[in-house]
Amino acid sequence: MAFKRHKIAVIGAGHTGSTVALMAAQKELGDVVLVDIPDLSNPTKGKALDLLQTSPVQQFNSRITGTSNYEDIQDAAMVIITAGVARKPGMSRDDLVATNAKIMRSVSEQVKRYAPESTVLVLSNPVDAMTYVCYKTTGFPKNRVIGQSGVLDTARFNAFVSEELDISVEDISGFVLGGHGDDMVPLVRYSYAGGIPLDKIIPSDRLEAIVERTRKGGGEIVGLLGNGSAYYAPAAALVEMAEAIIKDKKRILPSIAYLEGEYGYQNIYLGVPTVLGGNGIESVIELPLTVDEQKALDHSADSVKSVIEICERQM
Amino acid sequence: MAFKRHKIAVIGAGHTGSTVALMAAQKELGDVVLVDIPDLSNPTKGKALDLLQTSPVQQFNSRITGTSNYEDIQDAAMVIITAGVARKPGMSRDDLVATNAKIMRSVSEQVKRYAPESTVLVLSNPVDAMTYVCYKTTGFPKNRVIGQSGVLDTARFNAFVSEELDISVEDISGFVLGGHGDDMVPLVRYSYAGGIPLDKIIPSDRLEAIVERTRKGGGEIVGLLGNGSAYYAPAAALVEMAEAIIKDKKRILPSIAYLEGEYGYQNIYLGVPTVLGGNGIESVIELPLTVDEQKALDHSADSVKSVIEICERQM
Amino acid sequence: MAFKRHKIAVIGAGHTGSTVALMAAQKELGDVVLVDIPDLSNPTKGKALDLLQTSPVQQFNSRITGTSNYEDIQDAAMVIITAGVARKPGMSRDDLVATNAKIMRSVSEQVKRYAPESTVLVLSNPVDAMTYVCYKTTGFPKNRVIGQSGVLDTARFNAFVSEELDISVEDISGFVLGGHGDDMVPLVRYSYAGGIPLDKIIPSDRLEAIVERTRKGGGEIVGLLGNGSAYYAPAAALVEMAEAIIKDKKRILPSIAYLEGEYGYQNIYLGVPTVLGGNGIESVIELPLTVDEQKALDHSADSVKSVIEICERQM
Amino acid sequence: MAFKRHKIAVIGAGHTGSTVALMAAQKELGDVVLVDIPDLSNPTKGKALDLLQTSPVQQFNSRITGTSNYEDIQDAAMVIITAGVARKPGMSRDDLVATNAKIMRSVSEQVKRYAPESTVLVLSNPVDAMTYVCYKTTGFPKNRVIGQSGVLDTARFNAFVSEELDISVEDISGFVLGGHGDDMVPLVRYSYAGGIPLDKIIPSDRLEAIVERTRKGGGEIVGLLGNGSAYYAPAAALVEMAEAIIKDKKRILPSIAYLEGEYGYQNIYLGVPTVLGGNGIESVIELPLTVDEQKALDHSADSVKSVIEICERQM
Repeated sequence: MAFKRHKIAVIGAGHTGSTVALMAAQKELGDVVLVDIPDLSNPTKGKALDLLQTSPVQQFNSRITGTSNYEDIQDAAMVIITAGVARKPGMSRDDLVATNAKIMRSVSEQVKRYAPESTVLVLSNPVDAMTYVCYKTTGFPKNRVIGQSGVLDTARFNAFVSEELDISVEDISGFVLGGHGDDMVPLVRYSYAGGIPLDKIIPSDRLEAIVERTRKGGGEIVGLLGNGSAYYAPAAALVEMAEAIIKDKKRILPSIAYLEGEYGYQNIYLGVPTVLGGNGIESVIELPLTVDEQKALDHSADSVKSVIEICERQM
Repeated sequence: MAFKRHKIAVIGAGHTGSTVALMAAQKELGDVVLVDIPDLSNPTKGKALDLLQTSPVQQFNSRITGTSNYEDIQDAAMVIITAGVARKPGMSRDDLVATNAKIMRSVSEQVKRYAPESTVLVLSNPVDAMTYVCYKTTGFPKNRVIGQSGVLDTARFNAFVSEELDISVEDISGFVLGGHGDDMVPLVRYSYAGGIPLDKIIPSDRLEAIVERTRKGGGEIVGLLGNGSAYYAPAAALVEMAEAIIKDKKRILPSIAYLEGEYGYQNIYLGVPTVLGGNGIESVIELPLTVDEQKALDHSADSVKSVIEICERQM
Repeated sequence: MAFKRHKIAVIGAGHTGSTVALMAAQKELGDVVLVDIPDLSNPTKGKALDLLQTSPVQQFNSRITGTSNYEDIQDAAMVIITAGVARKPGMSRDDLVATNAKIMRSVSEQVKRYAPESTVLVLSNPVDAMTYVCYKTTGFPKNRVIGQSGVLDTARFNAFVSEELDISVEDISGFVLGGHGDDMVPLVRYSYAGGIPLDKIIPSDRLEAIVERTRKGGGEIVGLLGNGSAYYAPAAALVEMAEAIIKDKKRILPSIAYLEGEYGYQNIYLGVPTVLGGNGIESVIELPLTVDEQKALDHSADSVKSVIEICERQM
Repeated sequence: MAFKRHKIAVIGAGHTGSTVALMAAQKELGDVVLVDIPDLSNPTKGKALDLLQTSPVQQFNSRITGTSNYEDIQDAAMVIITAGVARKPGMSRDDLVATNAKIMRSVSEQVKRYAPESTVLVLSNPVDAMTYVCYKTTGFPKNRVIGQSGVLDTARFNAFVSEELDISVEDISGFVLGGHGDDMVPLVRYSYAGGIPLDKIIPSDRLEAIVERTRKGGGEIVGLLGNGSAYYAPAAALVEMAEAIIKDKKRILPSIAYLEGEYGYQNIYLGVPTVLGGNGIESVIELPLTVDEQKALDHSADSVKSVIEICERQM
């Protein structure tokens, strides 16, 4: 039996896509093909070349190439989709959704064609709906089409708690359900520092402030940057999920998963705790929720549903 | 004795600076303070926050903060300077040098004031002359003011050789002297794959093409990106040098070093093989050169001298 | 300012000591001096040499030396004590305690003399009492004399839970108080998989079996090995504590700490949750205990007290 | 496509075997099955359990199990053989060879039966002949049966040079051909520090002393330990080769390879530079040798031949 490096396709070569390529290569998860549209073919090749020239310094063994030709993702074992446009001034949310859904369908068709056995991670915004579009377009089994939002939300929460307590990030463990940002459902009672429930060591008003800051975490960075949005932590989040799957780690991580009855929902992609392993989402973990939590999750689900409807009108 | 994390100041929060911050934090070399000018204060804070939120995912223990206030670099043990403008259309080389020398003097004065015990790494362009300006302005001992170009040039060379031979980057070892880019003096006879001299396993025309491509390596990426220049490999190169120093590794790496007689030069910063350890440049390694190599190095030195003169006219 | 590698002294060059040396070197925590008694001078040098020859392969920068001369630990920043004899057939517990207390006093005097600023980690058995002896003999402040047992007990618990649930060890988080082995006080209600309390996902009889197996974890391995006891996980536990301190991580880890009122105890070393950072034990975390937990901890403390008394009779 | 962890079987659970298990697990190369004879079944399980309990501390995802049942290596992708006896007082070399050849044949038959697609690394002594026996017994293609000696010899040489020059091991690159120990053929002219040929920076008598010490490197450690032989560096060497293959790195490393005409030899296993990648030995690199080098290699080959003959008499 010959050992082979996996091929990992990263669709969208903006800041997030190229940071995903860097981080996946640093971990030697496989060879990375960075893909963007023909107009961006050269910059994509430029970034890939710059990344490749990083490999002798950091001593990682991953070939990184840039392309605008989907044939180059042939037989990719994993596809990470970061493509999509950001909301521009004057653009309605529905217009944004329509535009990105169109992009997602187009990307997904290529993925279906060239990487039919791949596991797909989606970051494109709005992520719950875009993951749904990818799932429907590829026709892949649900365990192989997965969205990212909770790993990032948790990372933000953990970073804030780490700073608040002056405790290593290694010992902070937060927990979120539901949608990204405003629709996030934080489960503070499942959040700890060194195993100690946070509500025992952080005053409730401070903890609420941290939850609120997490909820608006993406916006805070957009506001500071002035032009553009976060990409380091989102890329790291995607790569953590990719690593859990490629190394068949069986990690418990929040994923945007297709639900068929779990938590009372059907035919929707929603952020829930999952086990990520070699088969992608190997299971959805169902936790008993309080009435308030279930209500917040319902609200989150409604919000996702309404966006999915916009997408479906076009399909 | 209490153990303390080092403070590492990164001046200039563009793509290179923030990538340096990421890579230094990933290696837990210390806490990172990312500094840029007041106009860019918010984006700098935004990038630092995004990087901080990466730490819970990648499990590194480094605080990363953004600032435009030099007081925040107080007592930094290491300073990495990536500040400077890129050449714009219509700008003469002399204008570029003058502008960046002014920036470098201003930065260096702050470094002298707030981090008088620090070791300084310089990337700003044109790097030999800018390192010289930093050295003269700070008045630091020569071993603590160091420029980067050879680690990056070598990385590019190694990446191309690795691709040519289909051999792991771990086993390719190139060697360059002199200035960056066109003024680079590659010592192919000191370059190997798995210890085997490259000229024994790569046809001479292919090897020459790789040398030539390396020489123009920065330009190739600028050309592809269309807008901007390489930053992943340059950042990795800086962090490799920083790591060698902070961990007192005694690594043999090419540095831009202040010469006082070595290779026949005086009062100049030039790319030469050095030992990097806890004291910064612990020694310059002098190699016997062939007539052609010495000639090429002389050419490189002349080129640096002429740029230094432009800088000195203003000092 | 020159950067210097820390010196780490490892006292006792048996399996645990040499594995500590390996793991500390792999993490580049500093240069390692492995110390054993004159009779074992050569084997100690042999192990150190074998470890040093590992460094080119694994590319770590740590000098590792072997010695039986305590002068060689001069100015060590950290001392890790694994010395002591194992209980032999026919040896009473009191004899074992007396023998190891004598060894510990002798080692501690050398540490006091040659490494007066060091932070000391103790593994020698029975560890609570031996840490106490080290504290009294060195006269070091309490934050710099620390015993290990809870990190190992937790590791065993986590390994068993990981296997039970088929979930990555990265997501399992156990919690123990009190003494080692039989005197261990597991806080199952502070133990989680992916943030989910274990008692919600593991049947109570299975969970009890895991707790019981953890309690007897050292004995299980002694029984299997037939000759000797565990050393890989104990060494990893020591190095995790050392890393938390050397890198000033502020980790929440269980330590054997000197108590002055915490949890109601005085003048005793006992396993409690602590914050480990650059100052060693930076704080003891006090958690409200249930009546049963407090009772179990009292029992554990009594047991430690009685061993300490044996030691004190000789001091 | 589901991602699966590789199964790595380590045959022989002595110090080297269990250290291989640790290092392979630390690198997450796959799940490790540690195998020893029925008499050592329990200690093997004990070591495996101790290693497994290390995983929560060091956060690696590898299941480690101990067994004496070869069925448990079913479908292993890689097999690392460390089994064999050490030479005892009064034992002739021929007796040692005969005994270990018998063990090797028995192990190889099990490997052939249960892991017919595996790539096999051999450490057992005398390693050239034992690799030959494994090759003949398994009937595997030559690229999948590989012996280790040169990586270890090079590591020792590099460690000594690093110490001599006070230069990081990362920058030292030695080169050996031929057999292990006395039969080693060092190619000093292909050995460097930071790319600089060693004979330019180390006086020839010092360099000769280092070569001589390398040649006797195994014996030096046996002499110091008094009882037993080196295992840290040998284990690291095996794992480096395993990693090169499993990650399909295309590394240039010295291997004991089956020769069919290379360097003028037939039907022999001998230490030569090779490319290690996903197919095991992907190629043997032939270097032009000086007359003296070829003579030394001939001597080495003769020595291997004579041992192979002892083995063949029994086959």
